[in-house]
Amino acid sequence: MRGAVIHGTQDVRFEERADPQISEPTDAVIRTVAACVCGSDLWRYRGISQVTRATPIGHEYVGVVEAVGEAVTTVRPGDFVVGGFLYSDGTCPVCAKGMHANCQHGGGFDGCQAEKIRIPHADGTLLATPGQPDPDLVPSLLALSDVMATGWHAAVSADVRPGASVVVVGDGAVGLCGVLAAAMMGASTIVAMSRHADRQAVAREFGATHVVAERGEEGLAKVQELTDGIGADCVLECVGTEEARRSAVTYARPGAMIGLVGVPHGDLPTDELFRGNKGIRGGIAPVRAYLPHLLDLVWRREIDPGKVFDLTLPLAEVAEAYRAMDERRAIKVLLQP
Amino acid sequence: MRGAVIHGTQDVRFEERADPQISEPTDAVIRTVAACVCGSDLWRYRGISQVTRATPIGHEYVGVVEAVGEAVTTVRPGDFVVGGFLYSDGTCPVCAKGMHANCQHGGGFDGCQAEKIRIPHADGTLLATPGQPDPDLVPSLLALSDVMATGWHAAVSADVRPGASVVVVGDGAVGLCGVLAAAMMGASTIVAMSRHADRQAVAREFGATHVVAERGEEGLAKVQELTDGIGADCVLECVGTEEARRSAVTYARPGAMIGLVGVPHGDLPTDELFRGNKGIRGGIAPVRAYLPHLLDLVWRREIDPGKVFDLTLPLAEVAEAYRAMDERRAIKVLLQP
Repeated sequence: MRGAVIHGTQDVRFEERADPQISEPTDAVIRTVAACVCGSDLWRYRGISQVTRATPIGHEYVGVVEAVGEAVTTVRPGDFVVGGFLYSDGTCPVCAKGMHANCQHGGGFDGCQAEKIRIPHADGTLLATPGQPDPDLVPSLLALSDVMATGWHAAVSADVRPGASVVVVGDGAVGLCGVLAAAMMGASTIVAMSRHADRQAVAREFGATHVVAERGEEGLAKVQELTDGIGADCVLECVGTEEARRSAVTYARPGAMIGLVGVPHGDLPTDELFRGNKGIRGGIAPVRAYLPHLLDLVWRREIDPGKVFDLTLPLAEVAEAYRAMDERRAIKVLLQP
Repeated sequence: MRGAVIHGTQDVRFEERADPQISEPTDAVIRTVAACVCGSDLWRYRGISQVTRATPIGHEYVGVVEAVGEAVTTVRPGDFVVGGFLYSDGTCPVCAKGMHANCQHGGGFDGCQAEKIRIPHADGTLLATPGQPDPDLVPSLLALSDVMATGWHAAVSADVRPGASVVVVGDGAVGLCGVLAAAMMGASTIVAMSRHADRQAVAREFGATHVVAERGEEGLAKVQELTDGIGADCVLECVGTEEARRSAVTYARPGAMIGLVGVPHGDLPTDELFRGNKGIRGGIAPVRAYLPHLLDLVWRREIDPGKVFDLTLPLAEVAEAYRAMDERRAIKVLLQP
């Protein structure tokens, strides 16, 4: 089979790779129906994270089960499945608390931008759809694999409740999904911090009541104008840079929660949080914990997170997908084998 | 009137001071019925915080209203009142969110270890009891002024819910009140980290299901033994030292909330929190927000936080009260004018 391999900075190739096999009784092998490129894949593409040797890449996928190990009981060959970008056993005490991303026997994927994928701990990682999906549902199902679940985690971590005021920092696919999550949770004011017309449009479709393009003092002034002069009840930080994280703290009112899902670059000032009685919570999203609810919302067409994909390419053109995202010509690229 | 004045390290004197007066229409003046010494008062007593000039000291009190300014509407002369250790207007947008400690027009007290006290913003700061309290209720009412409300804030910040497992770091009056708060919120496992027999006894009376005297690796192992090997759902950090804060993080399971009320000495590692999907929240307690509920619980004798007072002295012996707390001969000293 063929799949994407990153060889170094700005060097992703579509290559022949060994077919994945069932190697543990808890494994499944799936034939990929759709995959995509993640903002975090760009770290290696841009040379921010070093690539020391050729590595299969990609961690988002939906597909059809081809084979399962003998211990797998919840999915069977032919099932259309969605899975998280981390695998988890689904049974350890941490998974029992719904924190699958921190599973005691879990780990990460790489190499999902490929025609086939081996899924460890299939029962604790995959969820089958109620039937074969209509093709137009595939992008939204794919979004559940990472960005929608991560945006949801930001909103859960920020304790979004009906009537809340919410500021979303970051207008990438995760931030946009954070807007959608906040809307589904009943927030009444949802401010998307965005400077890009195309992303602003998606944010509004997803439920943003306001868009703020300004940054720094001006951005803060706009947020305060919309929040009684004191800041928002909830802030979703979906970037991870030091600047974004510090801005998120300033947008939060005393007593607010800040949901963090942007992979952090630099510590936050916890003394300042204490003085403001502001809380932070978050981390890597426990996708599998949210999948049943989110899959149900997509299946009933109540949410359409697939709108974050604004470019679709054949999997064989994965190198162009990276270029399009690197150059911000696309929010997120869907790849079809 | 007379009151306590701190002149320097280990130098608290009971002295003649000017009678407090109504100086703003929103003021009240109360005659103190009971006051006490706070762990945070010891910082100056011990020279950790510098005393540059003689300063009236103390911020916890209950009393009877003597006079009110013309704008005060909710308390009147003769009322027995409880109040927070910070004053707040009760009407600004921050108070409207229940975050009175961060009131836009609020501030702190000093000089409450005295026969009379001036209370700014009386309507937003004081709460009258339903009638004159029985004398045996006075210690518990006094505890609401700071330590019980602060322990409650730790539990609220840590998101304690029915059935939760909770670890309380700190066995001072605030930590003990944190145990009581967790019990009232329905926690099923409450672990008090305590090495002192007298404090352990109060912790058990307040609802601790387990006491762990060990620290470091051993303490962590004991906590994990009691929490399925993964750590607690909620951790209440009621000390504020770097060691206590870092321990609190280790006691928390993935997805846990850590409620912080110990005034911080040193930042927390937020990257580590992110990796563990652990949240922190807390700060100075919004006492006035919790007073209606807590006063009701005390009045109906459902909680007895006054048990944290294990020594009662005449206010005139305030210097001895500081010595007793400094030398850990007492958990907390109640002072009677």
